[in-house]
Amino acid sequence: MAGSDTEDQGSEPFETHCVIELSTRCHEDLIHWMVHRITSPKSAGGAELHVKTVRDVDTNQCRYLHISAPFYRLMETAEWLEMMKPDLTDNHALKEFTVKTLPKFVNDDHPYDQLFTYAEKARMVFFEVFELRAQEHELERFWHINKLRFTLGQSIFTKVQRKELINQIYSLHNKEDLKVLGAEWLKVSLLKKQPLGHIRDYFGEHIAVYFAFLGYYTEMLVPATLLGILMFFVQFISTASLQAVAAFAVFNLLWGTFFLERWKRHCNRLAYNYGMLHKSSEELEIPRAQYKGQMGRNEITGMPEPTYPNMNRYLWIAFVSTPIVSLCLLMTVYILNTYLNTQLRLNHEYAIHPTAWLFFYKFVPSGIYTTSINVFRAVYKYVATWLTDKENHRLESEYEFNLIWKLLLFNFINSFASLFYIAFWLQDLDLLRSHLAAQLITNQIIDQVPETIVPFIKVRYDKWRLRKDLRKEAKKRDARGENEDPNFEFLRDQAIVEGHQPPYLGTFDDYLELFLQFGFCFLFSSVFPIAPLFALINNLVEVRGDGFKLCNIMQRPFARPASDIGPWQVAFELMGFAAVITNLALIFLGPTTKSYFPTWTTVELLIAFVVVEHVLICVKLGMSSIIPTIPREISIAMAKNEYDMKRALKEGRAKETRKEIEERKMSRRVSGWVKRNPSSTSGDGEAYSVHKRVEINKGEL
Amino acid sequence: MAGSDTEDQGSEPFETHCVIELSTRCHEDLIHWMVHRITSPKSAGGAELHVKTVRDVDTNQCRYLHISAPFYRLMETAEWLEMMKPDLTDNHALKEFTVKTLPKFVNDDHPYDQLFTYAEKARMVFFEVFELRAQEHELERFWHINKLRFTLGQSIFTKVQRKELINQIYSLHNKEDLKVLGAEWLKVSLLKKQPLGHIRDYFGEHIAVYFAFLGYYTEMLVPATLLGILMFFVQFISTASLQAVAAFAVFNLLWGTFFLERWKRHCNRLAYNYGMLHKSSEELEIPRAQYKGQMGRNEITGMPEPTYPNMNRYLWIAFVSTPIVSLCLLMTVYILNTYLNTQLRLNHEYAIHPTAWLFFYKFVPSGIYTTSINVFRAVYKYVATWLTDKENHRLESEYEFNLIWKLLLFNFINSFASLFYIAFWLQDLDLLRSHLAAQLITNQIIDQVPETIVPFIKVRYDKWRLRKDLRKEAKKRDARGENEDPNFEFLRDQAIVEGHQPPYLGTFDDYLELFLQFGFCFLFSSVFPIAPLFALINNLVEVRGDGFKLCNIMQRPFARPASDIGPWQVAFELMGFAAVITNLALIFLGPTTKSYFPTWTTVELLIAFVVVEHVLICVKLGMSSIIPTIPREISIAMAKNEYDMKRALKEGRAKETRKEIEERKMSRRVSGWVKRNPSSTSGDGEAYSVHKRVEINKGEL
Repeated sequence: MAGSDTEDQGSEPFETHCVIELSTRCHEDLIHWMVHRITSPKSAGGAELHVKTVRDVDTNQCRYLHISAPFYRLMETAEWLEMMKPDLTDNHALKEFTVKTLPKFVNDDHPYDQLFTYAEKARMVFFEVFELRAQEHELERFWHINKLRFTLGQSIFTKVQRKELINQIYSLHNKEDLKVLGAEWLKVSLLKKQPLGHIRDYFGEHIAVYFAFLGYYTEMLVPATLLGILMFFVQFISTASLQAVAAFAVFNLLWGTFFLERWKRHCNRLAYNYGMLHKSSEELEIPRAQYKGQMGRNEITGMPEPTYPNMNRYLWIAFVSTPIVSLCLLMTVYILNTYLNTQLRLNHEYAIHPTAWLFFYKFVPSGIYTTSINVFRAVYKYVATWLTDKENHRLESEYEFNLIWKLLLFNFINSFASLFYIAFWLQDLDLLRSHLAAQLITNQIIDQVPETIVPFIKVRYDKWRLRKDLRKEAKKRDARGENEDPNFEFLRDQAIVEGHQPPYLGTFDDYLELFLQFGFCFLFSSVFPIAPLFALINNLVEVRGDGFKLCNIMQRPFARPASDIGPWQVAFELMGFAAVITNLALIFLGPTTKSYFPTWTTVELLIAFVVVEHVLICVKLGMSSIIPTIPREISIAMAKNEYDMKRALKEGRAKETRKEIEERKMSRRVSGWVKRNPSSTSGDGEAYSVHKRVEINKGEL
Repeated sequence: MAGSDTEDQGSEPFETHCVIELSTRCHEDLIHWMVHRITSPKSAGGAELHVKTVRDVDTNQCRYLHISAPFYRLMETAEWLEMMKPDLTDNHALKEFTVKTLPKFVNDDHPYDQLFTYAEKARMVFFEVFELRAQEHELERFWHINKLRFTLGQSIFTKVQRKELINQIYSLHNKEDLKVLGAEWLKVSLLKKQPLGHIRDYFGEHIAVYFAFLGYYTEMLVPATLLGILMFFVQFISTASLQAVAAFAVFNLLWGTFFLERWKRHCNRLAYNYGMLHKSSEELEIPRAQYKGQMGRNEITGMPEPTYPNMNRYLWIAFVSTPIVSLCLLMTVYILNTYLNTQLRLNHEYAIHPTAWLFFYKFVPSGIYTTSINVFRAVYKYVATWLTDKENHRLESEYEFNLIWKLLLFNFINSFASLFYIAFWLQDLDLLRSHLAAQLITNQIIDQVPETIVPFIKVRYDKWRLRKDLRKEAKKRDARGENEDPNFEFLRDQAIVEGHQPPYLGTFDDYLELFLQFGFCFLFSSVFPIAPLFALINNLVEVRGDGFKLCNIMQRPFARPASDIGPWQVAFELMGFAAVITNLALIFLGPTTKSYFPTWTTVELLIAFVVVEHVLICVKLGMSSIIPTIPREISIAMAKNEYDMKRALKEGRAKETRKEIEERKMSRRVSGWVKRNPSSTSGDGEAYSVHKRVEINKGEL
């Protein structure tokens, strides 16, 4: 049932770094060729990895490829990816790993087989597999078999996966590590810090940075909550004074700015410790496997890579992506507008003629709206992904940036347009408050239950069912005498079980949730000051909930490097600016202001609003430009690295040219120096002179 | 009359790189000691430079020190300053110069004595002289002689100059180079580009960048002028339509943004070609000679340097600089306000009772105002410099930034406050127009005449007078038989003549003039659309005028490196934002708008204004974030450098560790690889296997 290159695996037990689940439509020849490409030596365009195949017990079809990397390949890939590892000879300072400097990174306490974490190994194997590119004679090879046609230099597995001949690619959990991680992380304890180092080791930097942000944000919610509660009681007792409301708004503004600026520092410190802070030039980064184009050469390194004219991308963004996205956003506003108008008309009618029929009819628009907006959301997501794919970005970060922005705008409009409508068109602050509370709280409950509890039950049930099937299969195999290495049998069964778990689809939804929550809390904070309390409670649950999902429900995601929260930083910052404007506008619209400045005309109030708004935005900008983004100790450490590198380079060059220089006989002859004191009485010209001289043999230079 | 170390100067003629004119108060012992420090070897804390002294022909007092650097010292300093020079072995690509790689930078066509331009030599000698720092036993040495007390590690010449024991420090012009430069640069020709390369070679990057900016700005004024003239005629014929005014404002907005963004690209290209673009970490830059503090060590390089806690600086800025500057700015506004009120009252009175007495009395306030504001300007400049000195910035760029901002704010208020008052308080657009025109044009005429013509006549007269004196002195010397090397006699006389020319005080005034002009042109462009025409004419004169001043009137300034226009970039950008707001406000205040939207209330108009303003500012921000600051070809060239450096470093490291690795016997044994095809009929497990293996001797790692 399982083919393997057992002959070679005598000494080391086989470790599955990456599992490919093949579609049943995948032809045997294609599978054979893929395995061949994965296992061929580098020089023949292969990945030089080990593969074991797993076949279906009944149909004998090849269904799973288990891929593993030998240590020397891991080292090569780590060098290629410019991974940073602690240099044991230099106080564990992070240094770029190279194969030739391996001895610096290992010793008796840090043996070579612990140099890379499983997450790193899986990431590297995943990278190597997707870096396999179609060669000239292979382009049409599987056209008649699986309708598969490559372009020269295209990533093979990207194409095969897009054609749905691969069901999924995933890596495996480690029960022991999970137990340790879960014990540290998921205990219900408010004061304990998350074990970010362990999260990073197990899931990679991308996910660690998300949890760091979630934790940081939750911490920073505490002061906002305390003040919010205070403000809530002030408002509850009597109408709050203008000063109180204004002070509260200014606090929120300062808090928001400080929160985001301090996060940058915090995150840079984290990234530095992860060896992720030094960014090389974009041109030197490795392009995405999905990046398509004519095969050419990298302008800098001279390595072969696909090339695609930037102008095509710009044209596509300007004349296809932007209009389509704009149209969709307008559609969203239109759908929302129709719904709101219908709803308000019905409410109004019901208020006049309260019939039973109307009472129920009142719920129809919101039902239709919810359904249609959800359908539209799915369609939009598909369209946005397609558009961004077509934009053909060279780097993963650029791709992500462009996709996230498209989705973000939609979700922003979807969540906040109705609130803006209520706040600034209807100017009904009570309706705004109840809407805000409803959205914030239902959002949170809806998110937690279907996100966590339902899938957990399903996964448990699936596991139970699968284990039963697997036991049956094992019996069949025993009967046929198809015995395997028990270590691999375990991995084979684990891969089948985990293949049925849902995949982790990235941090987008998690960040989005926080982003919307941030908006609900601070866009209209003067209307609903207690919002941060709900957010705080939610996030304390969320940390554990998200962690639980990742550990117990989802497939283990491949580790991805990350040095920051990417486009979300900008998104949060923009939300901060929007919050300044909306809060001020609410204050100026509010009845308190009017009664506080009874002699002021509306025009004067508006001018005051504009001036205050500009001043506050300047304060915000000033704050963010004054607070340094990189903490001092980190910038010093980085400068030290730079200095060491320069010095090493100079010394290297010096060695190189020493011979040349010697040949040119550049000699310095120092004849010593003599100093004559001026005679204090006689006035004639004295000389202060230095007799040191250098003679350069001009003829030879 | 002139002492010299003639013995050693047989082969090479003495070249004066830097002249120090001593005060007559400077004691002979102090002079002797300074010369000693300049000429002592590096190892004894000296600068290892050559010095010739020039004594007064009558009093025999030492008055001038001529300092010259031998070639090997120039090379050492160039390496220390990380100067970039074209590598002749690598296609003239700019590389960091090091002494050991000298052969790469010279060949028969590029002999070593042309490696550094005179400007570079002068800059390096100036740097070395100011880097001489007081040693432990010298701190009190001249206290009784010249009331001079050093702190440990203080720059000696900074202190001596501050105590006014040195009159001035300058470098010398070169008549031949000037003739060539003048012929290329100062000819009256509109279409010819400025010879920026030659300007840079003669005056250094700092001045070359100023002229590059002036030229670029003048070029970019052409489209603005053409549209301005068109708009002027439209306004002249009839009241311009709202669309025309709005279109004009939007054009100006786009033009302003495009202008500044394109300049960044332009300037980065220039800086790259000058080898100025690669900025190392701030911590690695060499501190200013004026930077004071306890002697400590640089945190990164470990080199001795003064240290000063940042917190002290922040406290000084927050609690001394900021309040004092704010107070002065408020004072300016107060003086202006008093003047304007008095003037308006007098004008009003004159309109009612036009008496002859009042007619003349009307001019009194403006006279008093002009005098008092000029006195105040001088006082403020002194205060601002003192404050910034006390802030004790570590880097020249930081010092400059902080000083320029203080001066800039004052000048901005001084020039524009009255215009804002007229535009938005009085709302008198006719008065605004006449004021604008008056300020713009008188500013220009006032700037040119006293800036250029008067000093030129004075310098000519001084030269004529001095040459006469020098001829007399030469006769006296001949009579006494004090004959000198005729080459040095020439330099001695030149130094005396040029010592009487006014020093060039930096680019501040020149940039300020452009900055204010930019404001006059674009802050109220819809009121006075023809302003760019005046600016254009002025700048065409200015290029030649400034060039003429530098070549024929001023002392030759020391070259200073520069990669951009520094704080002026930000200043121009902020002016751009201010222009958006003022122009929109003018449009909305104008009568056209009101008549165009007769049904709109003022509140609605104001809301429209706010919305349009925010949209335009977003457009501006969007534009500047989309246009890449570094041109593609430059960023690729930089990435290439980075890549080469990394590779060189890796190879260097590889060499270093090869021995280590060999000792550890890390052997890879490749046993070849075999592939078995799956039998297409039989269903039992096949293996695709690669027999390539690596054995790592675990025990040894």
